Amino acid sequence: MIRANIYKRSIGVNFDDDGGSEVLVWAPLARSVELSVKNGKVLPLKKEKHGYWSLFTDELQPGNSYGFSLDGKNALPDPASVFQQEGVHGLSVATDVKKFDWTDGNWQNPNLSDYIIYELHTGTFTTDGTFAAIESKLDYLVELGISAIELMPVAQFPGERNWGYDGVFPFAVHNSYGGPAALKKLVDVCHQKGLAVILDVVYNHMGPEGNYLGQYGPYFTEKYKTPWGGAINFDDAWCDGVRAYFIENVLMWFRDFHIDALRMDAVHAIKDFSPKHILQEIKEYVDQLMQATGRSHYLIIECDLNDNRFIKPIAGGGFGIDAQWSDEFHHALRVTAGQKQDGYYADFKGIGHLTKAYSDAYVYDGRYSEERHRFFGSKTTGLAGQQFVVFSQNHDQVGNRMLGERTSALVSFEMQKLMASAVMLSPYLPLLFMGEEYSERNPFLYFVSHTDPELVEAVRKGRREEFKGFMTDAEAPDPQAIETFEHSKLQWGLINQPFHRAMLSYYKALIKLRKTHPVLKSCNRENVEVTVNEPQKVLILRRWDTDQQLLCLLNFSDQKEIITVNQ
Amino acid sequence: MIRANIYKRSIGVNFDDDGGSEVLVWAPLARSVELSVKNGKVLPLKKEKHGYWSLFTDELQPGNSYGFSLDGKNALPDPASVFQQEGVHGLSVATDVKKFDWTDGNWQNPNLSDYIIYELHTGTFTTDGTFAAIESKLDYLVELGISAIELMPVAQFPGERNWGYDGVFPFAVHNSYGGPAALKKLVDVCHQKGLAVILDVVYNHMGPEGNYLGQYGPYFTEKYKTPWGGAINFDDAWCDGVRAYFIENVLMWFRDFHIDALRMDAVHAIKDFSPKHILQEIKEYVDQLMQATGRSHYLIIECDLNDNRFIKPIAGGGFGIDAQWSDEFHHALRVTAGQKQDGYYADFKGIGHLTKAYSDAYVYDGRYSEERHRFFGSKTTGLAGQQFVVFSQNHDQVGNRMLGERTSALVSFEMQKLMASAVMLSPYLPLLFMGEEYSERNPFLYFVSHTDPELVEAVRKGRREEFKGFMTDAEAPDPQAIETFEHSKLQWGLINQPFHRAMLSYYKALIKLRKTHPVLKSCNRENVEVTVNEPQKVLILRRWDTDQQLLCLLNFSDQKEIITVNQ
Repeated sequence: MIRANIYKRSIGVNFDDDGGSEVLVWAPLARSVELSVKNGKVLPLKKEKHGYWSLFTDELQPGNSYGFSLDGKNALPDPASVFQQEGVHGLSVATDVKKFDWTDGNWQNPNLSDYIIYELHTGTFTTDGTFAAIESKLDYLVELGISAIELMPVAQFPGERNWGYDGVFPFAVHNSYGGPAALKKLVDVCHQKGLAVILDVVYNHMGPEGNYLGQYGPYFTEKYKTPWGGAINFDDAWCDGVRAYFIENVLMWFRDFHIDALRMDAVHAIKDFSPKHILQEIKEYVDQLMQATGRSHYLIIECDLNDNRFIKPIAGGGFGIDAQWSDEFHHALRVTAGQKQDGYYADFKGIGHLTKAYSDAYVYDGRYSEERHRFFGSKTTGLAGQQFVVFSQNHDQVGNRMLGERTSALVSFEMQKLMASAVMLSPYLPLLFMGEEYSERNPFLYFVSHTDPELVEAVRKGRREEFKGFMTDAEAPDPQAIETFEHSKLQWGLINQPFHRAMLSYYKALIKLRKTHPVLKSCNRENVEVTVNEPQKVLILRRWDTDQQLLCLLNFSDQKEIITVNQ
Repeated sequence: MIRANIYKRSIGVNFDDDGGSEVLVWAPLARSVELSVKNGKVLPLKKEKHGYWSLFTDELQPGNSYGFSLDGKNALPDPASVFQQEGVHGLSVATDVKKFDWTDGNWQNPNLSDYIIYELHTGTFTTDGTFAAIESKLDYLVELGISAIELMPVAQFPGERNWGYDGVFPFAVHNSYGGPAALKKLVDVCHQKGLAVILDVVYNHMGPEGNYLGQYGPYFTEKYKTPWGGAINFDDAWCDGVRAYFIENVLMWFRDFHIDALRMDAVHAIKDFSPKHILQEIKEYVDQLMQATGRSHYLIIECDLNDNRFIKPIAGGGFGIDAQWSDEFHHALRVTAGQKQDGYYADFKGIGHLTKAYSDAYVYDGRYSEERHRFFGSKTTGLAGQQFVVFSQNHDQVGNRMLGERTSALVSFEMQKLMASAVMLSPYLPLLFMGEEYSERNPFLYFVSHTDPELVEAVRKGRREEFKGFMTDAEAPDPQAIETFEHSKLQWGLINQPFHRAMLSYYKALIKLRKTHPVLKSCNRENVEVTVNEPQKVLILRRWDTDQQLLCLLNFSDQKEIITVNQ
């Protein structure tokens, strides 16, 4: 591996104390690289080892626009740009990433087992859709009782409206959200208020517009196919520069933005047959960083492989990742709560599978999956409860429905409460999706704001075709329309209405119980016994510690049930 | 996993003692499957779980032709056919794979560290090109001193002439070599004479002609690209049937053919992201088989990844494979002996790299490879010497040259002896390529005998283009021409000539030394110290045990050298 520097960025622009800057870019196949600064001035970079180019200059000041010209061609934005004030197609803005007056010196990242996560989308969480506007809601979140917010991806994506998974500048904080300074401010304030911050990052693909990486070097490989075309090059020729790029990205968020944990999107689409998987290499660098700074940081993955290798410790032959999302718990819960077994729900047979999820985290842990047409998954023996993040809804499960309905639009008030309880009483890490705590009624729809008309049409068409099999009179909302975005915003006024206030009270009580009850606040998976009464649709969850035991009865039927519990 | 039966084949045709047969085939997407037997009779198979179809019948006798008709279409040969008497496009011949009067009850597979391997190609090793003809050479091989023959692939390939890597029926023993009965006979006679038998098998691709597997089911996936197109489906939908197919293949060779070890071709092209890699799963089944039968069998791989995970024990997080080929030792040795550093030799810098290969097996064990454009490989710490097979030539290294020159046509008599010594004195497993022991002068060329004219032309063209960059007046020999095949046969008469007889004597003495000297016969990598005198091109190899030490001086210069050895 090309060694990443854990103390400062080894790509992009680094300012020193005297106003000079060190400029570094990876362009292994270029014959020449020049820095393009204001007034059309260009400064040649020097070729270094392994495809890197460098320059030390005092012609670049924080706030200046800059780009790189490869082989004499037009200047392109910096792949490691921290700020794209003019959007994905504009030049980069030089930013001193180390500069910020942090006030969180006393902050201590909670134990992972104490995380209660609140996932939010910056653009639709508030009317303004900015980091600054999130700050105004932090007291509300503290009162709700959650311990960590999770920001959907903030890396620069095309246009102003996007879930974030179309990002093309992994280091750049989106301009319409407020850019890098505003994100640091938000993190600092969160820490002051006792909230951890998780950031969602995408290392498995790049968005379809504004992706200039391919012009810099072999960031992609055709060896593997992913849902988004060629895979990011983690193991083909020249992969070290690409691996270093993403390692640098992890280090920057933790070191320079004080982010507490990363949620790495869809790592099953990261194809890496190297002797050391990139996720393990990332973990090793994070371990080094933590040792150097004394701060702690967590790595959480989204992974649909049910492969324990990802979350086993490195010493045990795993990649050492701290935790993973558990979509199967969600699917089993939703089907138990009445969701039709279609699409990706088809493999989930209701309360029996939910029982399995409580006891084994993976529902498919080696058994045959009819939908995947194969025996699927591995065992979770020895893995801790806090290694699985569970939820009754999240951005994907809501937004991937044609009409983006939250659970609130699909099930009764009582069932919403039951689903929240199912999550909160589990020995896993609970995650809420913004607004569920007061039963927000607006949908969370799929929205984009690409500028390439052909791409816009392709996305519209794709969305229509995705749902054309559904037996419905409704049409898929136009992802590009601003109304689709606006309609996805939370309606904070609802909280004042009795129905919604009642739900909020329920969530607060539930979270408080989870945080204070000695049995519930533990993620001990050993002291859990789960049995099911299938005809009555009642799940009996018994949890205990040395002093006491707790019996949770979850009635998923639509009526009162009388059951006998063995003591 | 669909459980493979270690005691008998779970696919193809199994005969019982009363003349009945059990017929099993995997065709998960077929709506109907019929067995087609003589006189146009068809017998429907019954659908079983997981895509299998079965039938018990007494209408099929050993020696009968048969095939399967899917969805009423024309009958195809059996994917698990053991005998394709009429070639790849003919129907299969029902064969009782259990039937053979074995006389090797007392045979004991030697320890792997005692293997001295002789690689041979059945078609060109003798004039007749059959298994029977190999038998007549076994006394010669015993006298030479080798302990194992390694047969290049014998699975049915198109036509009569092929290296074997174009096989399309992994279970069928090639008809022109003598078919399954003749192979069993050869193994039995080898065992009587004290020789182990290694079989080369190809689990990473199928040949370009006569491949009917795709019509039976999803044997291939487009998720990954290999040099031969789509990869074999080891982890995509329906992969269990494919995995079971290859596991069955391993078990059949060991159990029913008494093969002692497999050499698995190019496993780096096996793409498997399952929680359990197919190689590990194969190893686990082989362990079960060995426990059941009390016989021992080895798994050896060709793998160009320098990834210790493949050959580490399963308990240590590896796949548990016993040994791997070490192409890097070869490349370093050849360059040291004067080979130009072009093509795949470009990464090898001569005697320094050979020194590295002696001490660490992998030359690239984490260092930067200019040819691969990446840091490459992992460490071999803790791996045993017998886990690496080394050679100064093999079928690939000879045959992938345009003119198929053996080392004998490229370097002097003395250098040939030195290269043989370099291999035999190493703490690794030595492998000879047929004929090198007496300095055979005929080339080993690339030859095929496809029947599809377009394919023939494509192969010819590919071969011409592969070598068009070479600065030579010669033309690439026509792979399809029978002369190319004939010209690749060994000329046994040479042994009677003094030059060749001298080389043979040298090899015999060297092998005897390796087998009898207490230090040399050990593959202990710990007690090895290798130093180099680069200007003089002398490599000093010191090996020892508790009682004695051995100093080997390998002088790769073209003159006498005087060196000082520290004691």
